[in-house]
Amino acid sequence: MSRAWGGEIGGASSTAGARPDEARRHNRAALLRRLHVDGPCTRATLATELGLNRSTIKAVVDGLAEAGVVSEAVPAQRNGAGRPSLMVLPLPESAVVLAVDVRVEQVAMSMVGIGGQVLGRHSWNLHRRTRTPGEVITHVAESAQLLAEELAVTARGAGISVPGVVRRDDGWVHEAPNLGWSDIALGTRLASVLRMPVQVANDAELGALAEHVRGVARNVDDLVYISADFGVGGGVISDGRPLRGTRGYVGELGHLVVRPGGRVCYCGSRGCWETEVGEAALCRALGLAEDAPRGVVVAELRSLATAPLPGPLDEFAEWLATGLVTVVNMMAPELVVLGDLFTALPAGVVDRVRTAVHERSLVSRAVGGTRIETSPLGRDAKLVGAAELAFEPVLGAV
Amino acid sequence: MSRAWGGEIGGASSTAGARPDEARRHNRAALLRRLHVDGPCTRATLATELGLNRSTIKAVVDGLAEAGVVSEAVPAQRNGAGRPSLMVLPLPESAVVLAVDVRVEQVAMSMVGIGGQVLGRHSWNLHRRTRTPGEVITHVAESAQLLAEELAVTARGAGISVPGVVRRDDGWVHEAPNLGWSDIALGTRLASVLRMPVQVANDAELGALAEHVRGVARNVDDLVYISADFGVGGGVISDGRPLRGTRGYVGELGHLVVRPGGRVCYCGSRGCWETEVGEAALCRALGLAEDAPRGVVVAELRSLATAPLPGPLDEFAEWLATGLVTVVNMMAPELVVLGDLFTALPAGVVDRVRTAVHERSLVSRAVGGTRIETSPLGRDAKLVGAAELAFEPVLGAV
Repeated sequence: MSRAWGGEIGGASSTAGARPDEARRHNRAALLRRLHVDGPCTRATLATELGLNRSTIKAVVDGLAEAGVVSEAVPAQRNGAGRPSLMVLPLPESAVVLAVDVRVEQVAMSMVGIGGQVLGRHSWNLHRRTRTPGEVITHVAESAQLLAEELAVTARGAGISVPGVVRRDDGWVHEAPNLGWSDIALGTRLASVLRMPVQVANDAELGALAEHVRGVARNVDDLVYISADFGVGGGVISDGRPLRGTRGYVGELGHLVVRPGGRVCYCGSRGCWETEVGEAALCRALGLAEDAPRGVVVAELRSLATAPLPGPLDEFAEWLATGLVTVVNMMAPELVVLGDLFTALPAGVVDRVRTAVHERSLVSRAVGGTRIETSPLGRDAKLVGAAELAFEPVLGAV
Repeated sequence: MSRAWGGEIGGASSTAGARPDEARRHNRAALLRRLHVDGPCTRATLATELGLNRSTIKAVVDGLAEAGVVSEAVPAQRNGAGRPSLMVLPLPESAVVLAVDVRVEQVAMSMVGIGGQVLGRHSWNLHRRTRTPGEVITHVAESAQLLAEELAVTARGAGISVPGVVRRDDGWVHEAPNLGWSDIALGTRLASVLRMPVQVANDAELGALAEHVRGVARNVDDLVYISADFGVGGGVISDGRPLRGTRGYVGELGHLVVRPGGRVCYCGSRGCWETEVGEAALCRALGLAEDAPRGVVVAELRSLATAPLPGPLDEFAEWLATGLVTVVNMMAPELVVLGDLFTALPAGVVDRVRTAVHERSLVSRAVGGTRIETSPLGRDAKLVGAAELAFEPVLGAV
């Protein structure tokens, strides 16, 4: 057993062998991560939050300032008397990453600077012909090049969101059914054309990361994010860490069985959650064609904001609730974030789901009531998550 | 965000502030853990596995030998020529813990020495009148005292397994429906009468731990253990760590909804996995009374070992499979271990479940086929897990 049960005890050498330069690198990464995630603050705050003494903070900040990664400035607004403390600010353009969100109908990308500032964006629609892996890879590479030239920045790494079953170790896409992709070496192929480190992850996993770092789950260590873009998926953060299974695969919450013997799913099972609450099911519940344009679906949902729910939508809410009871009972989260299309659900549906989970989940009651919220990041969640994914190794190497 | 995403990076001070005595304590705990989990080995093996130099190993082993925690001995069997290397052996009685498994019909307890050796055992049956928390606590305390005197050992800590929803932080039992317990400060109350550190955990979580440390999942970092003792529960180890949710509560896999609108469950939901594959459901499938004695149930299952499965048992297998498809799709485990009563299932049932999961789980296929095995530890799993739970802090403090 290489890892300790329940503890953070690493290999015996990790502490025993810590060298001064390792400690410096570690402190530098921790300080940058603090500024990146929580924004500018004073040296004193850094010292308190990171548990380091002021001379160590000074050395790290001076080093980063010399390298052009941070600057120090007097805050514009003074409060209180006395000399204002200098704020340490990350300089966005000193460390930039590329974020790419491959969705079924669109690819969105952005260049993001340290601190999370979006420096530039680009997107294009996908059609049947342009949705092949080769077409997408080429278009991403060309657009990244143009964006980098336009902004005069060089990305240090890329994070890619894909709605599918992804092996995190090497960015292998096992299956992305709604894109029509299977067994694509996306990570390796993109790294080769982009000529930078590339990490690929499941879209729902990145939605969870985004909400955890910059969204509604900032101080929540146990959360589940539900994605709903054509298919349904889920990303889980447990005890502050992303939940992944064997070989880096994350679970597929869209394929929990909610209705045994129900509709056949492409996955080989029947009555999957996705077949009951995916976009096609929502369209059916709204009396629309299963492939109705997203705009029409959203407009229809908005029109129901204050109206009583039609019967089929009520049934839709029941299936959404049934799946969430299972998710909450299995994961014991503090917070469930409903993303994508689910952010447009009428309040009546969300309320019905909240009530059902409260009444039917033993675990929700045990943990003091699992909260259920819609995503404030909405359609940007995966792009934000992809940027954070890319920043992870970058912050340690700046 | 206090924890790093995806990394093992702790607070900045943990490396920067590592002192020599901390490193020594850390090395000592790592070495003891190695001996405890994997058994005796040479100093050279310890050096290789722990990544420490020989002089550090010598210092730690000498220190532990002086404290009477390990000894060094020539192995009985010599293989190859040359002088045999001394083996470092943990001395079981030098660090002992108390393990307690509170089951519905019985309490089992053991004193376990470092290395996992069971030094002594005791158990008693529970009836309606003796199943109250007060009766159990008193009986545990008295029996622990007797066992300690008999063995002439002093336990350094206790681990308690309970079939219920447990808050790990303080051993609060929120609900243990099959015991009829709710809101019991079990950890605090037991610590006060046993006068030692006490940790309480959900029985399925401890089953998972036991299989991970000493059972069929020794080298498996992503596993799910399914307990089936009256109720059904699950313990998950993900990336080598136990999966826990908010405030240390683990999920309740028994309450995933497999049959919407099905039988009413005490938890407030309907058609929970437990209502379809718990012991009462199994009895129904076998044509027995729902409260048939365990021995009768097991005998009936054994009699079906080679016979064709009766229809109701086939249906039981289908519900077991349906729940497992959901579990595998959500957790992406490498291995699922079926524990307790499920170890007595006819091979035909287990095979049917294996086939169903293989055919219907997208995630099983992605990870290269989730294995499904019955527990080799069987009825002892929770007791073994409770001992390991108790050893966790003890190994760091010997």
